[in-house]
Amino acid sequence: MGMMIQTGDHVILYHSERMNYLVTVQSKGSFSTHRGQLPFDRIAGREYGDAIRTHLGFLFYLLKPGLADLAMKVKRSTTIVYPKDVGVMLLSAGVFPGARVIETGSGSGALTTILASFVRPDGRVYSYERRPEFSANARANVERYRLLSFCEFFVRDPEHEGFEQLDVDAVLLDVPEPWTLVAPAHKALKGGHSLVSISPTVEQVRKTVSAMEMQGFTRIHVKETLEREMLVRTSGIRPADRMVAHTVYTVVGNKVNEPGLANVAMPEPVPDSPRDEV
Amino acid sequence: MGMMIQTGDHVILYHSERMNYLVTVQSKGSFSTHRGQLPFDRIAGREYGDAIRTHLGFLFYLLKPGLADLAMKVKRSTTIVYPKDVGVMLLSAGVFPGARVIETGSGSGALTTILASFVRPDGRVYSYERRPEFSANARANVERYRLLSFCEFFVRDPEHEGFEQLDVDAVLLDVPEPWTLVAPAHKALKGGHSLVSISPTVEQVRKTVSAMEMQGFTRIHVKETLEREMLVRTSGIRPADRMVAHTVYTVVGNKVNEPGLANVAMPEPVPDSPRDEV
Amino acid sequence: MGMMIQTGDHVILYHSERMNYLVTVQSKGSFSTHRGQLPFDRIAGREYGDAIRTHLGFLFYLLKPGLADLAMKVKRSTTIVYPKDVGVMLLSAGVFPGARVIETGSGSGALTTILASFVRPDGRVYSYERRPEFSANARANVERYRLLSFCEFFVRDPEHEGFEQLDVDAVLLDVPEPWTLVAPAHKALKGGHSLVSISPTVEQVRKTVSAMEMQGFTRIHVKETLEREMLVRTSGIRPADRMVAHTVYTVVGNKVNEPGLANVAMPEPVPDSPRDEV
Amino acid sequence: MGMMIQTGDHVILYHSERMNYLVTVQSKGSFSTHRGQLPFDRIAGREYGDAIRTHLGFLFYLLKPGLADLAMKVKRSTTIVYPKDVGVMLLSAGVFPGARVIETGSGSGALTTILASFVRPDGRVYSYERRPEFSANARANVERYRLLSFCEFFVRDPEHEGFEQLDVDAVLLDVPEPWTLVAPAHKALKGGHSLVSISPTVEQVRKTVSAMEMQGFTRIHVKETLEREMLVRTSGIRPADRMVAHTVYTVVGNKVNEPGLANVAMPEPVPDSPRDEV
Repeated sequence: MGMMIQTGDHVILYHSERMNYLVTVQSKGSFSTHRGQLPFDRIAGREYGDAIRTHLGFLFYLLKPGLADLAMKVKRSTTIVYPKDVGVMLLSAGVFPGARVIETGSGSGALTTILASFVRPDGRVYSYERRPEFSANARANVERYRLLSFCEFFVRDPEHEGFEQLDVDAVLLDVPEPWTLVAPAHKALKGGHSLVSISPTVEQVRKTVSAMEMQGFTRIHVKETLEREMLVRTSGIRPADRMVAHTVYTVVGNKVNEPGLANVAMPEPVPDSPRDEV
Repeated sequence: MGMMIQTGDHVILYHSERMNYLVTVQSKGSFSTHRGQLPFDRIAGREYGDAIRTHLGFLFYLLKPGLADLAMKVKRSTTIVYPKDVGVMLLSAGVFPGARVIETGSGSGALTTILASFVRPDGRVYSYERRPEFSANARANVERYRLLSFCEFFVRDPEHEGFEQLDVDAVLLDVPEPWTLVAPAHKALKGGHSLVSISPTVEQVRKTVSAMEMQGFTRIHVKETLEREMLVRTSGIRPADRMVAHTVYTVVGNKVNEPGLANVAMPEPVPDSPRDEV
Repeated sequence: MGMMIQTGDHVILYHSERMNYLVTVQSKGSFSTHRGQLPFDRIAGREYGDAIRTHLGFLFYLLKPGLADLAMKVKRSTTIVYPKDVGVMLLSAGVFPGARVIETGSGSGALTTILASFVRPDGRVYSYERRPEFSANARANVERYRLLSFCEFFVRDPEHEGFEQLDVDAVLLDVPEPWTLVAPAHKALKGGHSLVSISPTVEQVRKTVSAMEMQGFTRIHVKETLEREMLVRTSGIRPADRMVAHTVYTVVGNKVNEPGLANVAMPEPVPDSPRDEV
Repeated sequence: MGMMIQTGDHVILYHSERMNYLVTVQSKGSFSTHRGQLPFDRIAGREYGDAIRTHLGFLFYLLKPGLADLAMKVKRSTTIVYPKDVGVMLLSAGVFPGARVIETGSGSGALTTILASFVRPDGRVYSYERRPEFSANARANVERYRLLSFCEFFVRDPEHEGFEQLDVDAVLLDVPEPWTLVAPAHKALKGGHSLVSISPTVEQVRKTVSAMEMQGFTRIHVKETLEREMLVRTSGIRPADRMVAHTVYTVVGNKVNEPGLANVAMPEPVPDSPRDEV
């Protein structure tokens, strides 16, 4: 009963909020913590939810990693994508089992991994990245989670070479100059489907929105998401002292097939006053 | 070549931020808006991303609904679950293609629909609800999105009768007294996997966390998520004037198989000072 | 004992969160509410903290207005300045009893009133406004609170005509194009003292900060303040559903006497690496 | 012409965001920074807004401290009161030139100093503190800012001994158990005037609100204030990465003279349905 942990599986070794690790179970050796050694052969064969002790007697729980853990703890060469933002992206874009999705840049592969998890088993993530070493790192991370068969990696600059796919269900942009990719994204997307772009600065947002309006997107929204932790202590409940104040703004819009119509929500001549709409 | 819209498909009819509708395409008749009629036979056969005009000449785009639209626009008899919170729930819990997930209450079926979308094609959502009429409404909403084959509905009070499933990948609670369901949730869950519970008040959070600690959960976190829209206008960029200030707190924790160990992160005797951990 | 309310005094007539009014006590007549009449001669002679009933039997408390009430309930022809932002302005700028402070525009006089309250009895608020009718309205509001002797009103465009005062303790800008007033503000301010400017959009902030850097200000900060209400009900404690998501960004900086030095925090040659400073 | 800085004056020595100090000018010696020495005799005689160099050639600006600086940089033995919260307190309570205000605990004297600044020259701050050493430290801090003549310090436990004053304009509580001081606060306050209490946890808020309702306060509100910095860089504008997520909740209410009436906003019999009020 339950799930026996095996070599190659991923485990959160959780001692406390400050001491926990996302680990891939190896066939031999130990994982070292500041509270002592955890031999892998004592992890393999146990079940998720079990607790084991280090040689110093400290307790660690063997927990099942969630996708949020993958996002936060992947080996990374670039900035992280926060779970709070990934959640918004997933629900805004057409990412679901069976979907075909373009993502760029590949970054550390954290977002690729999450997308691949959700398009299984019949969908596909097409991950574009200009820099070969980043693409290789992303691929390695995806492989670590056994999701490589749901992904294709492209080392390419989509600004000049475009995307290879057509009629994809979603395009997700996490690049410094997303406005340069709005035209190829429009071409690759299914009509009426979503482009989602994340950027840290207001200027990036402005240029991206502007490019989307010109290229033929409608229903364009920009959001930011804040997440605050509440501490439930015997001394009382209160929010945490500190929080992440900003990661990215998320821009979302839907492709209009005939670009010339994207900004003409109001026909000529106007039958009655549209003053109630902004 | 694109996706031809057919009878029974779902479409966002989008005129402007203030005037847009989630509609199921009927075999005959028209959809009425304040800007005129949109006959269904002029929608069917078009592609997502196309634009059509009402008999008064107003333009509406035919957009592909995302899961956030389903959450916000489902026919509902209960409070809504906001996309910002659903995103956190999806990434915190083990919801992925193939997962077996328990949810209660069924509510309006909005969350059921989203969960069913993500566990396809081999997973299953077990949706529990005490009130028969709510369960029926939720089932009807799920059916509307053709996801019924991925769901099972139970009209039952899980507090007294428990859940029927074992070894599920996640349990999601959206009930007024979640603490009463922590014990059955613990029993139903796979070891090391996640219970997620959402509640609007601090008192509910406190009782739920307390029940989870006693029942055998660890790595318990409580979060709230805020979403703010940015307005990108020619007159300048600035946040929207108003926002939703609160929906729910989200409580997440992982099942520990041996409940007696859940609160014993520190062994006796303590080898060195654990002062650096809170 | 206590404070007997007299004709001309200001009173909050408070029935409930939804029904309360800031009223000036008149020598005759009644104040009309949806819960009945409150004759002024039954208010005068009572003390703050007393409760009286309308002719329909509804209870109203006679409460002492605070400065936050003045900010929110002044007769206004322009946008409001929110107490949360006024608080930041007061503490960032040199506003204190005895201070000499320039403010522009006069707006509705709400901020003028608050500033005048705090510079009493020896200080002065110099309030500049281009539009005569706004200036007159602001003056009337200040007079209503008997603070006129602490204010001087100028109908003038400070961009072209400058400010008349020198060596003021603070300059506060609430105008659509604050960057045009940075030079006259620099001239009017005491060295090392603060310019505070509030604006709703990011573009205004950028231009203002840029003008301040060029004109000779240092220690420039931009902040936004959010205020959320908590509801304490017998059914539980939770944040309010809705909140004001944005009013203004506040820009603050200190005058450097020799403008050429304002952006030269680092000398040549650099003795050691300043890499730890941003 | 400007303000010549003298021995005993307070100066912000500002090199950069990471390196700046609130300093009292001494008659001899130097202030040491990581960027070199700043001899006091080269600060005295200069004006605020001037810039001086350390012996290593680094530039420091001589800036006028604002009240926010006093709040953040006072020598403290207790937790800080943040300017964002002080602003709310000032505007919610009756703190103005000439006001008589009770505060407890004295803490580090930071709030005492700010209150004293605003009640000058005819008002008074009555500062209560149970612990003699805290009271002495607070007094020393107030004296450092030459505001001692506007304050009176009491080493006393107000829960059992009450406050000595009557008819004060405001009472401000910053103690671990504010609900124990609601009765003495009610007694000391002028009718209709404000009690303001700050506390970090939800439980403290609940007990304080409950005590206020019972003791005879109305128009009770609870707020929290969040402040986020915006970074204006040549690379773009965006919010800071990190922020303070929580300091305190602020509870405000107005004294009702006849406590029995405080919770009877609705008379018997009710003339019409009050369903529109919460």
